[in-house]
Amino acid sequence: MPATTTRTAAEQPTFIRSDYVVLGAGTLAVLAAAVTRFAGGGAVLPFVCSAVAVTLLASLVGRSVEQLGDRFGPGATGVLQSALGNLPELFIALFALKAGLVGVVQAALIGSILANLLLVLGLAFVVGGLKHGTQQLDSERARSIIVLMVLSVAAMVVPSLAHYVHTPAAAHEKTLSLIVSVVLLVLFALTLPSSLRKQPSGAEQDPDHTEAPRWPIWLAVGLLAAAAAAAAFVSDWFVVALEPAMGALNISDAFAGLVIVAIAGNAIENVVGVQLAAQNRSEYAFAIVINSPIQIALVLAPLLVVLSAVFGFASLTLVFAPMLVVSVVIAVILTAFITFDGESTWIEGAALIAVYAVIATSFWWG
Amino acid sequence: MPATTTRTAAEQPTFIRSDYVVLGAGTLAVLAAAVTRFAGGGAVLPFVCSAVAVTLLASLVGRSVEQLGDRFGPGATGVLQSALGNLPELFIALFALKAGLVGVVQAALIGSILANLLLVLGLAFVVGGLKHGTQQLDSERARSIIVLMVLSVAAMVVPSLAHYVHTPAAAHEKTLSLIVSVVLLVLFALTLPSSLRKQPSGAEQDPDHTEAPRWPIWLAVGLLAAAAAAAAFVSDWFVVALEPAMGALNISDAFAGLVIVAIAGNAIENVVGVQLAAQNRSEYAFAIVINSPIQIALVLAPLLVVLSAVFGFASLTLVFAPMLVVSVVIAVILTAFITFDGESTWIEGAALIAVYAVIATSFWWG
Amino acid sequence: MPATTTRTAAEQPTFIRSDYVVLGAGTLAVLAAAVTRFAGGGAVLPFVCSAVAVTLLASLVGRSVEQLGDRFGPGATGVLQSALGNLPELFIALFALKAGLVGVVQAALIGSILANLLLVLGLAFVVGGLKHGTQQLDSERARSIIVLMVLSVAAMVVPSLAHYVHTPAAAHEKTLSLIVSVVLLVLFALTLPSSLRKQPSGAEQDPDHTEAPRWPIWLAVGLLAAAAAAAAFVSDWFVVALEPAMGALNISDAFAGLVIVAIAGNAIENVVGVQLAAQNRSEYAFAIVINSPIQIALVLAPLLVVLSAVFGFASLTLVFAPMLVVSVVIAVILTAFITFDGESTWIEGAALIAVYAVIATSFWWG
Repeated sequence: MPATTTRTAAEQPTFIRSDYVVLGAGTLAVLAAAVTRFAGGGAVLPFVCSAVAVTLLASLVGRSVEQLGDRFGPGATGVLQSALGNLPELFIALFALKAGLVGVVQAALIGSILANLLLVLGLAFVVGGLKHGTQQLDSERARSIIVLMVLSVAAMVVPSLAHYVHTPAAAHEKTLSLIVSVVLLVLFALTLPSSLRKQPSGAEQDPDHTEAPRWPIWLAVGLLAAAAAAAAFVSDWFVVALEPAMGALNISDAFAGLVIVAIAGNAIENVVGVQLAAQNRSEYAFAIVINSPIQIALVLAPLLVVLSAVFGFASLTLVFAPMLVVSVVIAVILTAFITFDGESTWIEGAALIAVYAVIATSFWWG
Repeated sequence: MPATTTRTAAEQPTFIRSDYVVLGAGTLAVLAAAVTRFAGGGAVLPFVCSAVAVTLLASLVGRSVEQLGDRFGPGATGVLQSALGNLPELFIALFALKAGLVGVVQAALIGSILANLLLVLGLAFVVGGLKHGTQQLDSERARSIIVLMVLSVAAMVVPSLAHYVHTPAAAHEKTLSLIVSVVLLVLFALTLPSSLRKQPSGAEQDPDHTEAPRWPIWLAVGLLAAAAAAAAFVSDWFVVALEPAMGALNISDAFAGLVIVAIAGNAIENVVGVQLAAQNRSEYAFAIVINSPIQIALVLAPLLVVLSAVFGFASLTLVFAPMLVVSVVIAVILTAFITFDGESTWIEGAALIAVYAVIATSFWWG
Repeated sequence: MPATTTRTAAEQPTFIRSDYVVLGAGTLAVLAAAVTRFAGGGAVLPFVCSAVAVTLLASLVGRSVEQLGDRFGPGATGVLQSALGNLPELFIALFALKAGLVGVVQAALIGSILANLLLVLGLAFVVGGLKHGTQQLDSERARSIIVLMVLSVAAMVVPSLAHYVHTPAAAHEKTLSLIVSVVLLVLFALTLPSSLRKQPSGAEQDPDHTEAPRWPIWLAVGLLAAAAAAAAFVSDWFVVALEPAMGALNISDAFAGLVIVAIAGNAIENVVGVQLAAQNRSEYAFAIVINSPIQIALVLAPLLVVLSAVFGFASLTLVFAPMLVVSVVIAVILTAFITFDGESTWIEGAALIAVYAVIATSFWWG
């Protein structure tokens, strides 16, 4: 890894403009969320403020990990990003489970996968395609990521399929979900060593991205700890504000989880993926966007199942509502075909967004 | 487009032998259909005559569009063909909806897709493979068409899936179908500009097909108008004759729509696709055969949903019978895998026909 | 075929060490199975002995066919292997049908496909990947085999889909199963000529495998006849011992068929596939492993349906339990995507094994 040797670790913090924006806006949003939460801001305002705050804290966590991780080599950075990048989603899901909102959490897990595979990938194809024409996807790496994604999601949906079509298994859905969760976590653990060696976040193929760390280690660790702690609080407020807001806006639980929570929880990854496509770094954009569903299937969902069993929260199983299963299967198969196609056009992107719109609409009525 | 400049527009009509055959046989078939329709021809004869007449009129429409379109450049011809090539199918479906035969129309829409993807593609593979050995399909263009087809059909079947597995959506199937139809039509409109520029009918890759227009513009327009008008009448007779004929032959509604109406409505495209494969123009054959399901999913089906709502006909939704959904999903996935395979053999063709036979058989009992 | 001319047919039998092992162990296992069967060996011991004996007899049948077939050229060997290699599975299924164990037979048919596509392929990827790094699969041949496999399995599962989602067809499941079986057998017959010409078992791509036949023809025929006859007896004992053993071990019928009978019936192919991957002959391993599901779908399953109707055994149809259909569809789609990926890694292998484990677990409860 010659990249790390040529970089000089920052001794003094150097903030670039976007750092100031995220820090400033994040602090403001957390304050606004706290004020609207405790001073009474009606039904909708606390929800909006805490959603914005969660998103900005997620961005801050991502920045801190990036600054921190450069010191451990690119492989470790990827693993750190995998582990901590989903932290806000994990907090939201845990608080929602504590509040008994199992349906919202399940819809949000599948919704995150749908949003990444259909909406974000579609937007990336449209933006990239309109700016740069047909973009290439045909690398061994892209196909390898997509195959792992297909396999992970397939394993994750088996308990649902068994529940709905295999009567004897239905009575044992908790046991089956726990076994499958352990299998998924073991599979994730098996992929870790090669992730540590290679570069799961796609930085390998991204030679432009070779800037030295700008923050000294104490600042990166400090900001990471502060952002994570704040994210834990704000996630709680977000969940508390969710139900009244959905009631006021007349939005069903399923739609709220599938669309709103899912998009809020992935906002940063979403923006980054589209930005990269706009810069014609389509392979890197693809890796970022597809990596998220893999993490949801291999880590986030099984971890939540295990944690909800351990902590005695509302029992989360891997038995998703039938339409969630159908939707995720469609999304996965479509994405796989598009990847094997080897190139993306903006029309394919528009069609992906159309499929997302159609699926989201069908969840509008609860 | 140098091709259009080297062509000299015909001032005098030049009829080749096949023109005479189609015109003559078409006129005879329309007369026979009229006679058997109004003079009483039993239960089966009017149906057979009107089916043959519809097929020949469809061929005449196709020829007129081809002669006409050459004047507007190849892109516009493709769009005209897209728009007018499905005219007979549209007429049949509208009259069938007026007669309340919603099940027949839905079965015919899916049956057209199945017939193209399984039967016609299978026949093309068998004929092409036996004559020319293994044929290549592995072009970016083929994969790009198939991806758009998969995406279109996926969006089209979501309302059905929502209806059967997502209870709250079932009560809103009309609204959901209308929304999805509008999304599909918008998607089609988005693909139009690039279709006008490129050549959707595959003529680009078909340098052998460079003959000058043989008919002057007044003849092409006149024949197009006459054929379209006749098609409207004969479609009506075809629909009127359908029910008694099916009763006499003891054929169920589902089978009639899925197999008989679907094959009659696509007869010309079917023959052309197989002929092209026999001439070893497998890429062009493939483009013709796969283009039809795209048009059904993006234009014909959503247009019928919108028109049936506007005109107050028997209400057509995009909620297809479950076995229709299952069949179309199988057909689409099989075709996609075969395309990504990159080559076709006659055994793959035989297997496609076997799958078609098996699916058609399962619809025999209603 | 110059290979056959350079080989000198053995006049005197030459036994290599593995011949002695298989012959000796096979004889012992058959004796042990007979003793435990008739002298009373409890519930579990007769089952284990007869399972081992069936496996070793399957290996002996394979060896005899290989020695015999070299005289008829490589194509005929492949067809002979196809025909006789599944003999033990056929015997077991027939005796099980005679004993009324329809559910076990159906689970074993699907279980064989699952075991090959998920477990054995997964093991082959893990062993091959850990020893040799990323292995290539990207040959026209691999994609061509996988497409035939997808098509065969698709045709085989249509009666199940029709049964569950298309009410009118459910009343005619026997007729539909018989028709589909005949279609599948015709499709198999159509593939025979090209199999006789080419080399279906993949020996073509395996130049290392050019040893001359070691056994004279009388010995090959004699051992084949003896092994087949013994396999018939031992299959009967295996089926008789199955139910008490499952009862004693508290294993459900579905799990017994899907996992235990399926793995026992395919043990030799399984071991050979993994061995070949370990020797970095990944293309050959792949051909062996994928060939088995094709034979099950095109020959074994339809033949059993026809034979059960002809002999008046417990009526076997192609209407499989829903979870069996779902599982085989998942396995087929996953395998197809992995093949089109063009290369295999040990992580993909681990993920395939994980999916197998998850599916097998969901059948644990009957």
